[in-house]
Amino acid sequence: MAIIKEGLRPGGRSARVQESVHSAVRELLEAHERSSVTVPMIAARAGVTPSTIYRRWGDLSVLLADVALARMRPDSEPANTGSLRGDLQAWAEQYLDEMSSEPGRNMMRDVQCSQTPGYCVSILSGQFQAIVDRYPDNTPPSVDRLINLLAAPTVFRILFASAPLQVEELHELIELALQ
Amino acid sequence: MAIIKEGLRPGGRSARVQESVHSAVRELLEAHERSSVTVPMIAARAGVTPSTIYRRWGDLSVLLADVALARMRPDSEPANTGSLRGDLQAWAEQYLDEMSSEPGRNMMRDVQCSQTPGYCVSILSGQFQAIVDRYPDNTPPSVDRLINLLAAPTVFRILFASAPLQVEELHELIELALQ
Repeated sequence: MAIIKEGLRPGGRSARVQESVHSAVRELLEAHERSSVTVPMIAARAGVTPSTIYRRWGDLSVLLADVALARMRPDSEPANTGSLRGDLQAWAEQYLDEMSSEPGRNMMRDVQCSQTPGYCVSILSGQFQAIVDRYPDNTPPSVDRLINLLAAPTVFRILFASAPLQVEELHELIELALQ
Repeated sequence: MAIIKEGLRPGGRSARVQESVHSAVRELLEAHERSSVTVPMIAARAGVTPSTIYRRWGDLSVLLADVALARMRPDSEPANTGSLRGDLQAWAEQYLDEMSSEPGRNMMRDVQCSQTPGYCVSILSGQFQAIVDRYPDNTPPSVDRLINLLAAPTVFRILFASAPLQVEELHELIELALQ
């Protein structure tokens, strides 16, 4: 039965291993200090051997990055408030909140260690595109402009400044983007 | 003689240890793969014991961050081209170049692991302040605006996008900052 299913769905076992290992990582990161989580712990919880993990992900940092990237996929469309300015404000305030949190900071660190950090901007692009597509009559700003003026300062300040962006600054940047 | 000197200059020995360890790190990073550099290697080259390093820096990541922060201190004032726009262009193009390089990327990674990532923005602030102070009659943009519009997109795109900022985009951001 299992063999037939896998014959019909190539990658079925591989997808199940991935899901089980990702879940194990998420659960362990909730229960333990990040630095104490090891590949053998993850393997034991996921019901696979450590060598399965090493073969597939190479090492722990790649696995953590893979989980972080999977987590970045947003659960839903950006909030629709009825106006371009309102949608951008809602999006930017939520992004600032999420990225300033401890899981958000860890996620950004892991993503940088991944082989595909560009995936991060491609997700952001999709979200901004969804927003601007709602308001074709407003001659909305380009997606690149929104990434440079909203996402970049938010993340840069979290990573490299002593204090995150203030909400007032975020609103000023939105006005600048809308000019 | 050495004793007298140290009596006169408290911290003299400590400063020499720091300089010697920093030099050892810089030399080893030039000659070896980053991941192969260890505390015992650094200690041997610096002529100190590994425990001196552990006592002072805690672990290798803190030491690498400390060296990266020390390297960030610019050697000179930002170039003076005679105009605010020209100074910002010269600064931004050089920053994009430096940060896109392999040592630049490693530096940004190390700085994030440091206890004082805010030091990064304080250095940038000093450089932007030096530029805007040259042109008091131009009602120059605020330093925060320059950080958000020039430094942030440059770094964000290097860390999280598949391609760095293009020089044309950088020039557009400078025009926006000057508005």
